[in-house]
Amino acid sequence: MQFREYTWSKAEKKIARKAFDRAYEREMTHIRKEISERVRTLNEPTDVWALHEYLSEKRESIDAKYDYRYSQLLFVFARLLRDGYLEERDLVGLSQDKLQAIAVLLDIDGEP
Amino acid sequence: MQFREYTWSKAEKKIARKAFDRAYEREMTHIRKEISERVRTLNEPTDVWALHEYLSEKRESIDAKYDYRYSQLLFVFARLLRDGYLEERDLVGLSQDKLQAIAVLLDIDGEP
Repeated sequence: MQFREYTWSKAEKKIARKAFDRAYEREMTHIRKEISERVRTLNEPTDVWALHEYLSEKRESIDAKYDYRYSQLLFVFARLLRDGYLEERDLVGLSQDKLQAIAVLLDIDGEP
Repeated sequence: MQFREYTWSKAEKKIARKAFDRAYEREMTHIRKEISERVRTLNEPTDVWALHEYLSEKRESIDAKYDYRYSQLLFVFARLLRDGYLEERDLVGLSQDKLQAIAVLLDIDGEP
């Protein structure tokens, strides 16, 4: 999908950075909770390696997802909204055309 | 280092298997304890990735170390004795020449 280039005002960049960092913090908190849950039932060697697999997947997906380039940011925000790590109110203050673009991406992503 | 081939009696194979499994169980218990310790202080995203690194290293070292081929077993046992996951009494019943070979390997490994 081709996207036109958006310009980001200083105020928007501030909002974007804050939303991005907040989502990252929320997702890492979720992962920490998941680890704690798994550690409670860490009885077998296979549980240890399952935890390792889980962390490998999370590391890969987080490295890929949290891409703070302005060219990628609308895709990133759509994904984070879908995954529940961002709420619409976190993005209040971005221009209407950006919010609409995110909504379009969210719809596309949400299609079965 | 070249090693001559050893023959393993049925009784020795049983002792070897038991010692091997016991060491594996001890090391996995040690790893589970280490994970629990780390999870207690899992406050920052970097702690999560440090735990992942730890598990990656352990997975690699365990896969490499626990090699149950009779051609490798004396090396494996020497390593496990050195690492503290086996005790000499776990190997009682192996032939004297095998125990001596393990002692030689342990001395070589222990050299600075």
